[in-house]
Amino acid sequence: MPDKPIMDVLLTPQLIPLYPLEDKVVVVIDVLRATTTMTVALDQGATKVIPVETIQECLNFAGQPDHVLAGERNGVRVEGFDYGNSPFEFMDGVVQGKTLVLTTTNGTRAIRMAHKAHTIAIGGFLNYTALCQWLRHQNRDVVLLCSGWKDKFNLEDTVFAGSLLHGLHDEFTVDSDAAFAAEKLYVNARKNLLHFMKQSSHYRRLKHLGVVRDIQYCLRPDLTNIVPVLRDNALYPVTTK
Amino acid sequence: MPDKPIMDVLLTPQLIPLYPLEDKVVVVIDVLRATTTMTVALDQGATKVIPVETIQECLNFAGQPDHVLAGERNGVRVEGFDYGNSPFEFMDGVVQGKTLVLTTTNGTRAIRMAHKAHTIAIGGFLNYTALCQWLRHQNRDVVLLCSGWKDKFNLEDTVFAGSLLHGLHDEFTVDSDAAFAAEKLYVNARKNLLHFMKQSSHYRRLKHLGVVRDIQYCLRPDLTNIVPVLRDNALYPVTTK
Repeated sequence: MPDKPIMDVLLTPQLIPLYPLEDKVVVVIDVLRATTTMTVALDQGATKVIPVETIQECLNFAGQPDHVLAGERNGVRVEGFDYGNSPFEFMDGVVQGKTLVLTTTNGTRAIRMAHKAHTIAIGGFLNYTALCQWLRHQNRDVVLLCSGWKDKFNLEDTVFAGSLLHGLHDEFTVDSDAAFAAEKLYVNARKNLLHFMKQSSHYRRLKHLGVVRDIQYCLRPDLTNIVPVLRDNALYPVTTK
Repeated sequence: MPDKPIMDVLLTPQLIPLYPLEDKVVVVIDVLRATTTMTVALDQGATKVIPVETIQECLNFAGQPDHVLAGERNGVRVEGFDYGNSPFEFMDGVVQGKTLVLTTTNGTRAIRMAHKAHTIAIGGFLNYTALCQWLRHQNRDVVLLCSGWKDKFNLEDTVFAGSLLHGLHDEFTVDSDAAFAAEKLYVNARKNLLHFMKQSSHYRRLKHLGVVRDIQYCLRPDLTNIVPVLRDNALYPVTTK
């Protein structure tokens, strides 16, 4: 019987230089809110999502037909953009059949930083089961990349990484201290995710911006069976059975 | 009433560029085994401990009177050195009245990487209460620097940082996700530290080298009231009341 593939976690993008990503599947995690919001957009019928690092890159798409531009910095919609980074902004048919171009503080940047990976997917609680199922089928080592906050550790991405490690523990070789810690934190958190997350710095940050409803939404599990997978710099929906 | 000083944790030395250390007290943590062993040496009467980054720097002290040289890489004593990185090597009067020059895989390197700090101290479970007491008296922001393993996250240093955060929570402002997670992991671990640590990669690494007795020793609390503090590139014992 062949060895199981390895699953590890990168607690912040700052650690990327220490982990060779070539030949690996990288799951980029920015639960509050970028990777949740991108998944919502694809679930709501967006043809694709183009994650870009800078506001200027985003603006370069201005005027292109069927492109919706969205930008967020430090939790707030960037001035001059029609849309920010709330999943609720993309639910009323606004992205149906269109391309969403999005730049955020951490998540879109982390996707770019993982460019050496064999395959890049994204996720959050809303596509947890689908993502687990998709990862099982890759037969490849997996790195869970927590986007963090400005390259520092954050709680919500680590806890979500821990939930994937917990769900896939039997099917992967999990051997690192970071993975052990992430799973432990998830096991601590799972009984009352919202209560646990309320202790995170990002909750306090977003709470001041009045987006508690966003946070509650971002913690709801299994709202879609879509896994967004990167191809030619854009995320497309893959549906798992 | 003035604000309480801030206590934060750096989960690996790789994160140092993100945290300004100037004006801060940095506690370098390499519980298994460097910072434990250095504290033992001072408790056993060493005049001072010089932590050096490279084997060559260590060898530069060869032949100097009253200098004891010790070197470890990847958990093993470096060939040509009389001493490695086990606390038990320094208990039989071998360092009494002498200077210990030590280089290790992670701990001595982390001390060097923290050179911008206002003050650098080291510790482990063996001087836990003394270290807490000393930190209370500094009236200064504190950064707990986990040495990790080759710049990656490790469990034992994080758990010890968590124990300091737990013990000093009321006297410091503790606000980061990394600190929250470290304290949570400590609370998980404290009922049976050894059992918890057995799940760490470093335990498995050292276990293969037959140093389980070292690990058990490194987890024993409050064996000394000495706090090693860096001055002119050497650690000297400070005794707290």
